[in-house]
Amino acid sequence: MRILLVGATGLLGTAVHRELTERKHDVVTVARTGGDLRYDVTDPVQVADLYAAVGQVDAVASAAGAVPFKPLADLTAADYQAAVTGKVLSQVSLVREGLRHVSAQGSFTLITGVLSREPVVTGAAASLANGAVESFVRAAAIEIAPQRINAVSPTVFTEALDHYGDYFPGMKPVPLADVAQAYVRSIEGRQTGQVYVP
Amino acid sequence: MRILLVGATGLLGTAVHRELTERKHDVVTVARTGGDLRYDVTDPVQVADLYAAVGQVDAVASAAGAVPFKPLADLTAADYQAAVTGKVLSQVSLVREGLRHVSAQGSFTLITGVLSREPVVTGAAASLANGAVESFVRAAAIEIAPQRINAVSPTVFTEALDHYGDYFPGMKPVPLADVAQAYVRSIEGRQTGQVYVP
Repeated sequence: MRILLVGATGLLGTAVHRELTERKHDVVTVARTGGDLRYDVTDPVQVADLYAAVGQVDAVASAAGAVPFKPLADLTAADYQAAVTGKVLSQVSLVREGLRHVSAQGSFTLITGVLSREPVVTGAAASLANGAVESFVRAAAIEIAPQRINAVSPTVFTEALDHYGDYFPGMKPVPLADVAQAYVRSIEGRQTGQVYVP
Repeated sequence: MRILLVGATGLLGTAVHRELTERKHDVVTVARTGGDLRYDVTDPVQVADLYAAVGQVDAVASAAGAVPFKPLADLTAADYQAAVTGKVLSQVSLVREGLRHVSAQGSFTLITGVLSREPVVTGAAASLANGAVESFVRAAAIEIAPQRINAVSPTVFTEALDHYGDYFPGMKPVPLADVAQAYVRSIEGRQTGQVYVP
C-alpha cells in the first residue's frame, strides 16, 4: 500500500516507519522538520497543501500530536487550546482533507493515548485531547465507510521511560514495536471505529 | 448549598433548576439571555467576571454546551473549533476560574452526552466535544481533590424527541427528571471523576 505517515520523525513515527517499510509498504513521510515532505499539520491550509502534493494514498497514519503537560492549576485557556490545536484539530484536518485522497477501503489511523481513560497528574490537557480524538474516531467511522478510521491509544513507551516514566507511576509501559503493530492492524485489517490499546 | 447553575434557561437547565430548588438549594442562575446573571461562558473573561460577581459557592452545575450538527463531509475546521469553544473550553473555563470560588468539598458538574461513546450521523463534532469533556473530568478529579468534578452524560431527552429523535434512531430516551437526578447525585454525593449516565 501507499501510506502517508505524519509525524514520521518522532520516536513513535520512526518505529511505525520502520515496521511499515519492512512490510513492503510505500511510505511517504511527513514531519515539521525532516521526512520526505515538510508540513505543519496543525495548520489546515498546510494539510490541504500536503494532500495536493501527495495525491492518492491507501492509508494515512498519524503519529503527530503535541500537548502541554502542567499541573492543572497552571494550565491556561491557551494551554487547552494548544492541546486541541496540536493533537485534535490537526488530526481531524488530516481526515477532513484526506477523504478525497484515500482509497475506497483505505484507512486513517490516529494517535491518542492512555490518558483518555486513565489520568495522571499534569495530564488534564492531554486527557482532554485524547478523549476528543477517540470519540471523533468512533463517530467518523460510521460516516466515512467504506473508508475506515481507528485510533491507537498506547500507554507510556518502554523506550521513553527515562524521560516520561515519572509521569506514569506504576503504569505498565508498552514497547514501540507493539504500538507499531497496532498501526499495522488498523491499516492492513478491515475494522473501523476501533480504539486499539497496544 | 449555594449552587451556580450555568445554562439555566435551556430545556435541561430548567429541569435541573426546578429539582435543585425543590431540594432547598440556593441556586444562582446564569445564561446568555435570562437567569439571575447574564454571561457568555464561551468567553473566559466573562467566566472570570461571573465568578467575581457570584463569589463563593458550594457547587457549579453546567447545563450549557452548543455544538454544530452536520454531515461529516460538511463539517469545517471552524465547526470543530466551534464545538470545542462551545462545549469544551467553556466548561473547562468554569472549572479553571471556579477553583478559587468553590468550597473545599464542593463540586463541578459538567454536561456531556451519549455521543462520546455511541455515534450518530451528523454528530462527529458533538462526539469530539463530549469525549474531550469526559476525559477532562476524569483527569481534573485527581488534581482538584478534595474539590470534586463529575460529568452527566445523557442520551436524547424524552422531552426533546420531537425535535431530535430522528438523530437518535432506536436509542432509548431519558426523561429530564432522571437527568436532573444525576446532577443531584454529583452535587450531594461525594464521588468524583465519574461520568454519570442517567
